[in-house]
Amino acid sequence: MDSSGTPFELMLERLIDASPEKLYRAWTEPDLLKEWFTPRPWTVSVATLDVRPGGSNLIVMRGPEGQEFPNRGVYLEVVPNRKLVFTDAFVSAWVPSAKPFMTATITFDEEGGKTRYRARVGHWSEEDRKQHEQMGFHEGWGKATDQLVDLVSRL
Amino acid sequence: MDSSGTPFELMLERLIDASPEKLYRAWTEPDLLKEWFTPRPWTVSVATLDVRPGGSNLIVMRGPEGQEFPNRGVYLEVVPNRKLVFTDAFVSAWVPSAKPFMTATITFDEEGGKTRYRARVGHWSEEDRKQHEQMGFHEGWGKATDQLVDLVSRL
Repeated sequence: MDSSGTPFELMLERLIDASPEKLYRAWTEPDLLKEWFTPRPWTVSVATLDVRPGGSNLIVMRGPEGQEFPNRGVYLEVVPNRKLVFTDAFVSAWVPSAKPFMTATITFDEEGGKTRYRARVGHWSEEDRKQHEQMGFHEGWGKATDQLVDLVSRL
Repeated sequence: MDSSGTPFELMLERLIDASPEKLYRAWTEPDLLKEWFTPRPWTVSVATLDVRPGGSNLIVMRGPEGQEFPNRGVYLEVVPNRKLVFTDAFVSAWVPSAKPFMTATITFDEEGGKTRYRARVGHWSEEDRKQHEQMGFHEGWGKATDQLVDLVSRL
């Protein structure tokens, strides 16, 4: 089930001074996810998370001018406090989306009292990987992760 | 979890005089699947089926001249004796395939001592749906289903 070696991948990795449990909560409880998921001044206006294999999620990202971007996906694998996998290839189980773009694998591994946190985002083509990178993957996910670290430090 | 209303779908439906359990076995036991899955004179030379959510399958179809066509996929949902969902969008959990083409939802519903058998095959575009139809979906899956009915009558 290791996704290493996945082609067309983008990756963010950090050692975070918080437990896997707190990081997992921040990913799976809507009120917590809203606090960190979008780099400010963007916000999350809607977060509906049915966290189970085959469950859907809807996260609406809202820009500073009020423009809204809905993101729909389906959870493929859920290992509480350890691993979450979701994809935008389906909008619900198992209705194909307009465009299969990415599959994200988030892992939370305990390491010396902290958590080795990895977000791996696989794509179906090099073109999509590059587009995601140019949309600001590293900066966007990096800032969001800063906000995540700040949030879990207060849990 | 009902997939009705899925866009770009092809469907085969039959009322089969056998139990859901036998039909499910024919889909999930490699030695049985080999007996019916490809319309003769095509055969299945390899069937490896890790039947669980996130498990992979590999089915190699072999033509009368010996040409081989490997098909890889991943099970998305498994409800024993009731439902199987698998897709070729991943080659293993959760490695993207070269081309996400289809997601198949096979359901086995008991109906008056027989089984209402439905194979729904969703695609990510009308172009792919049409291509699958032109490749002979209805004839191919129809013949294979005849072979399936024959097999389960002998179980």
